[in-house]
Amino acid sequence: MTTQAYGNTAADQPLGPLQIERREPGPRDVAIDILFCGVCHSDLHTARGEWDGTLYPCVPGHEIVGRVTAVGGEVDRFKVGDVVGVGCMVDSCGTCPSCHDGEEQYCTGSGFVGTYNGEDAHLGGHTFGGYSKHVVVDQDFVLRIGHDEKDLAAVAPLLCAGITTYSPLRHWKVGPGQKVGVVGLGGLGHMGVKIAAAMGADVTVFTTSPDKREDALKLGAKDVIVSRDPDAMKAAEGQFDFILNTVAAPLDLDPYLAALKRDGTMVLVGVPADPHKSPDVGNLIFRRRALAGSLIGGIRETQEMLDFCHEHGLTADIEMIRMDEINTAYDRMVKSDVKYRFVIDMASL
Amino acid sequence: MTTQAYGNTAADQPLGPLQIERREPGPRDVAIDILFCGVCHSDLHTARGEWDGTLYPCVPGHEIVGRVTAVGGEVDRFKVGDVVGVGCMVDSCGTCPSCHDGEEQYCTGSGFVGTYNGEDAHLGGHTFGGYSKHVVVDQDFVLRIGHDEKDLAAVAPLLCAGITTYSPLRHWKVGPGQKVGVVGLGGLGHMGVKIAAAMGADVTVFTTSPDKREDALKLGAKDVIVSRDPDAMKAAEGQFDFILNTVAAPLDLDPYLAALKRDGTMVLVGVPADPHKSPDVGNLIFRRRALAGSLIGGIRETQEMLDFCHEHGLTADIEMIRMDEINTAYDRMVKSDVKYRFVIDMASL
Repeated sequence: MTTQAYGNTAADQPLGPLQIERREPGPRDVAIDILFCGVCHSDLHTARGEWDGTLYPCVPGHEIVGRVTAVGGEVDRFKVGDVVGVGCMVDSCGTCPSCHDGEEQYCTGSGFVGTYNGEDAHLGGHTFGGYSKHVVVDQDFVLRIGHDEKDLAAVAPLLCAGITTYSPLRHWKVGPGQKVGVVGLGGLGHMGVKIAAAMGADVTVFTTSPDKREDALKLGAKDVIVSRDPDAMKAAEGQFDFILNTVAAPLDLDPYLAALKRDGTMVLVGVPADPHKSPDVGNLIFRRRALAGSLIGGIRETQEMLDFCHEHGLTADIEMIRMDEINTAYDRMVKSDVKYRFVIDMASL
Repeated sequence: MTTQAYGNTAADQPLGPLQIERREPGPRDVAIDILFCGVCHSDLHTARGEWDGTLYPCVPGHEIVGRVTAVGGEVDRFKVGDVVGVGCMVDSCGTCPSCHDGEEQYCTGSGFVGTYNGEDAHLGGHTFGGYSKHVVVDQDFVLRIGHDEKDLAAVAPLLCAGITTYSPLRHWKVGPGQKVGVVGLGGLGHMGVKIAAAMGADVTVFTTSPDKREDALKLGAKDVIVSRDPDAMKAAEGQFDFILNTVAAPLDLDPYLAALKRDGTMVLVGVPADPHKSPDVGNLIFRRRALAGSLIGGIRETQEMLDFCHEHGLTADIEMIRMDEINTAYDRMVKSDVKYRFVIDMASL
């Protein structure tokens, strides 16, 4: 069936209206009318061809909230009218050790199928994301949204920004009594602060912008360290149990690694276009510190995150846009001019 | 009291006979006649001024096995005639969180006092190591050696090479059913292979030298991968639970990180003089891998390691030298011409 969408046909083209095909729902499928779609930096990088391998036409969007319009005969977890979410993945091999462990994002079989720019096993070609009216997804990759959730638009960014920060915070067992740093206060960082604080940690934001202090404290941070201040960074040495680093630009990681206690870990969730400065090995060895990476989260954990956020009343801080404002929104994201996530009102498409 | 020792007086001077002072044993001290001292790369780097901060005269040596000749009035754990060991540390603050946790190597108070080139709080000046006839050490930094240990010379390298590899293997819970890589087959690496195999892991050696295969298998490895063979490295992708990297030269870490499974960790135990190539962040993120560091081990863990090695019949493969052969031994170590550790017979001093 043909669906109205929004995307581009080449890296140097702006996004505009497109017609795409969605499959007829199969026995295990959930058909969803999309209400809101968050705007992730990955959308911009993919649409603009800044990463290798973009397939055009490109319809981005993997922070989807919508309403179920139809379900296949074998679908037992969702019914028509349910409010649901779809995140970064719509399929995976289902049989590899990672899939077996519910960590589909690390699927080593076929690799997970991205919500957009992935291989579409049903229709051939590639998958199209949430900048569209309608999507059809296997029930195993559909998430439940709390039926009493008041601000569905602000829930959408949880599907990527939320799980990308929740998963490492949970995996490395962040909790009460721990001092946690969050590097960068953007779409990911602002969710990292909220979630880490809700987990009971004492959160400090590292930012290059002194003017983000007030915001950081409002989001739940106890303290702010301006990373351009060498004295402040020096004073932070050995203070942190865990640091979540959301910065995707090339960075000197050493002052952050030095800010970790013995046995502390810094987790990177962004891949810089150019390499970071090579981290000082002494910083790792002399306090048994670790530098690690983490990728979104599995479906089971994404549901856990949504439930956690629902329970703690956490959503993203968003700026709602119309679909035809997306190109301007991308330009503003490049300048970090958003607090903290754009969300598209899909009724505007 | 004056003790015969062997050291140098400047970075460009060879080592030769020296007289040094040792303190009279205090109430908590153990006086030890040194029988054997292993020769660590740190000895060479320090004596030759290749690291910053060498204090001269320099008497290296921190893989010490000897016999107790006197004990202070408060010493309750050792008696005259006991065979004991001294490793890389002879003191620490005793009160910081790391000391409290028995991880004196990470002491954040005064920092641990190195067996040589550390600050000597008793006599002033700096500490002198095991290239000497006699040493006096606080009982808390003296290790028990099994009384029925047959080859005491081969036990000496356990005090640094043994604990440096045992500690990360234990900390990261290496055991049966795990596939463990050991990068580099030198003094540290050969102990890493023996210990990891004794812990029940399936051990693979990564080496640049195809001619080390037979040795690696004899030491307990199940397999050998020649790291210069790109096809072999490619085939190793995603295979390892844990990698112990003993190489201290600048290295491309990426093929090793890629060899880790999801959630695998590579631990570095050597600090290269020049930085490693900056590790690929994607390698970390897309499998939630970690790059970490580890420094020797605490005293409690060193005792545990000695007991473990005793129980499993593990000692180092050594080449015994006379004290006056040390300069030649250093030259050979630079060329990796030793299988796998030189040990000085201190009777030759």
